[in-house]
Amino acid sequence: MLDDTHDPALRSWVDSANDGATDFPVQNLPFGRFRRAGTEEPYRIGVAIGDQVLDLKMALEQCPWDNFHYRMLEPLAAGNLYHLMSLGPKARHEARAALSNALRHNSVQGPFLELCLVPQARAEMTLPCRINDYTDFYTGIHHAQTVGKLFRPDAPLLPNYKWVPIGYHGRASSIIVSGKGFARPSGQMKGTDGTPVFGACRALDYELELGALIGPANAMGEPVGIEQAEDRLFGMVLLNDWSARDLQAWEYQPLGPFLGKSFATTISPWVVTMDALAPFRKRADRPEGDPQPLPYLDSTENREQGAIDITLEVWLQTPQMKFQGLPAVRLMQSSFLDAYWTLAQLVAHHTSNGCNLSSGDLLGTGTLSGPTPGQGGSLLELTQGGRQPITLPGGEQRTFLLDGDTVTLRGRCARAGFASLGFGECVGQVGA
Amino acid sequence: MLDDTHDPALRSWVDSANDGATDFPVQNLPFGRFRRAGTEEPYRIGVAIGDQVLDLKMALEQCPWDNFHYRMLEPLAAGNLYHLMSLGPKARHEARAALSNALRHNSVQGPFLELCLVPQARAEMTLPCRINDYTDFYTGIHHAQTVGKLFRPDAPLLPNYKWVPIGYHGRASSIIVSGKGFARPSGQMKGTDGTPVFGACRALDYELELGALIGPANAMGEPVGIEQAEDRLFGMVLLNDWSARDLQAWEYQPLGPFLGKSFATTISPWVVTMDALAPFRKRADRPEGDPQPLPYLDSTENREQGAIDITLEVWLQTPQMKFQGLPAVRLMQSSFLDAYWTLAQLVAHHTSNGCNLSSGDLLGTGTLSGPTPGQGGSLLELTQGGRQPITLPGGEQRTFLLDGDTVTLRGRCARAGFASLGFGECVGQVGA
Repeated sequence: MLDDTHDPALRSWVDSANDGATDFPVQNLPFGRFRRAGTEEPYRIGVAIGDQVLDLKMALEQCPWDNFHYRMLEPLAAGNLYHLMSLGPKARHEARAALSNALRHNSVQGPFLELCLVPQARAEMTLPCRINDYTDFYTGIHHAQTVGKLFRPDAPLLPNYKWVPIGYHGRASSIIVSGKGFARPSGQMKGTDGTPVFGACRALDYELELGALIGPANAMGEPVGIEQAEDRLFGMVLLNDWSARDLQAWEYQPLGPFLGKSFATTISPWVVTMDALAPFRKRADRPEGDPQPLPYLDSTENREQGAIDITLEVWLQTPQMKFQGLPAVRLMQSSFLDAYWTLAQLVAHHTSNGCNLSSGDLLGTGTLSGPTPGQGGSLLELTQGGRQPITLPGGEQRTFLLDGDTVTLRGRCARAGFASLGFGECVGQVGA
Repeated sequence: MLDDTHDPALRSWVDSANDGATDFPVQNLPFGRFRRAGTEEPYRIGVAIGDQVLDLKMALEQCPWDNFHYRMLEPLAAGNLYHLMSLGPKARHEARAALSNALRHNSVQGPFLELCLVPQARAEMTLPCRINDYTDFYTGIHHAQTVGKLFRPDAPLLPNYKWVPIGYHGRASSIIVSGKGFARPSGQMKGTDGTPVFGACRALDYELELGALIGPANAMGEPVGIEQAEDRLFGMVLLNDWSARDLQAWEYQPLGPFLGKSFATTISPWVVTMDALAPFRKRADRPEGDPQPLPYLDSTENREQGAIDITLEVWLQTPQMKFQGLPAVRLMQSSFLDAYWTLAQLVAHHTSNGCNLSSGDLLGTGTLSGPTPGQGGSLLELTQGGRQPITLPGGEQRTFLLDGDTVTLRGRCARAGFASLGFGECVGQVGA
């Protein structure tokens, strides 16, 4: 639904939001959970605007609101995004409209809200909400094909791929927010003589993904039809599905990935709402000759605007590059348009057996690689299974990640006639 | 650690606890969360004793306790088992000692606590705690072999099985307490002409498992060594990992079980603590010729008493049997001693990559089948993949479960010189 909150002519009284390069113009208005860095104050919900955060706890206290908006802001001020998530699209539209009005140029609330800004550089972000269950899908068909080819050269894509949105349950407890480091995992892997050994992972990788956070829950035993599935989505984040390839290769049969993934998963702190993404919806057509989705995964709306045009990038900076004053290098670029399944299809499939999704549950898209070899969404793909190292500025080579390496994911939406917007950064440093 | 709470001569002032056939003698003292059936009162923690529940909220109010025990009981009275879980074995021993003293014959608290009993028949049980993350393992080697043979007759057991405790992340949101029904799931399955179809599951199965609930959490990045792993366990429950075999067969490659399992998982309401299970510990030796566990999965204590002697059973009653006045029939019996990996090994392996376990997390053992064909822990095994129906009393046949079928799991521990004890029942009815 496009409305005046998407008007590209809108300007904010927060100057930095009007710079076309910002990820957070007044047309975006993503939610995150934060506190002032260095304090022990309770986390509250904020809205990113330019290089600032609007502190909704202060905004509740400092600014005169009518009863309706006061009640809407109260749980957000208390650091609780679930309430807004659980209410569904109408409440989310209303919150967006109120924030858009308050943050646009010449708003009556502007003078009050100026006192409620915190520079993003001084905000300590945390996860936007507690994530109860995390499911990771496998919608990147180019990733599935490239990785499949490494293991099964003759049949890279399994027979179910074009019928079933393949997914698995991920580990929720080790999801961390961008900027938080993690230790290189240890684990069991196949030794050179075939006998397994235990030791530090030697094939540490990232995976470029997006994540969708669930809005209203469905009760157990009550599937969400494809026509209602969009209404169950609250917003999206960037997701780095860190992977220990040597652990994964040895453990994953027959029950799938486990310790090769569960040591850390990083998400970006700002939840870009489905409203902000509305201008970037696109047709989700099947390639010529592919089977059409079964009816429970098919709808006119899904075909006509199930896809979302998000350009994605992976950037890498090594300790040596930093030492030499070299900036991070972009390793690849891809588009969420290349995903084989839409978010609505993931929701409809996930709940088709009666499985209950809760507000704040996270659905990962799987690795979003593009169709060309240079568009691999992981080092596994870019280095052809570790056989072909990539060369970095300064002359270093990498097959997999070394300690101190910093991986940054970025995502951005652009369309003629609309304001561009982005996801901020999803950053993680190995062993930090 | 055996102490006077394990004394087989102990009797309770609750008469029904002294009947040798009860699962809940004074030597057991499992924790559960309940309220009086038909009320909306807040759930509180109770202790099963004979056919009664000691209501710890009333016990806190009605009985004089010293400061130490008052502080211990307070979170339990409020319905929170996490607090006790998080404190570890010493606090759990202390709680057990206090409850054992209070519930044994001639205790000074007896006259007060008599007023705090609720018949189990009038208690509405709920999950003992919120389960944040649920991991299901695959420790039943006879299950792995039998199921593997159905798919890979020449190589039933994969090369990693005897080295890695195979596991996968399960769905936490659809874990339900014994007695709660669930709808037969629908889903995508392979059609007769090879084209997949969507419809109601036609191969619904149970899986006989045990579950372990985690006590103290470990921080992300801090593995729990095998020597400390036992201290991370709080207690155990029965677990029925309901499985839609047709959905599972079509979806599970390459990322493992997903919708074939996530529609429902039932656990028994009473958490039998590791203290209660102490008399039933046994040696955990590897079969002759099998590889010894890698050092991170091996310890003297684990070899000497890593296993637990629990006899397990599956019972089935169909609507027709009920109509004909026929009681449930026992389908099989097996022992947890046949598991290939111990609980301590599961904890050490799970955290070996730095994955953080939280208090209340659930670890499933996987299907606990015995070595003989009649000891399959699922219908898939008992019916040889659905090819050989089993015949029930009254003449009915089953390959998989039909609507209205009730599956009951039972578990019991017995050892000469000790009081026998059990887990109560883990009951689920299909489509109820």
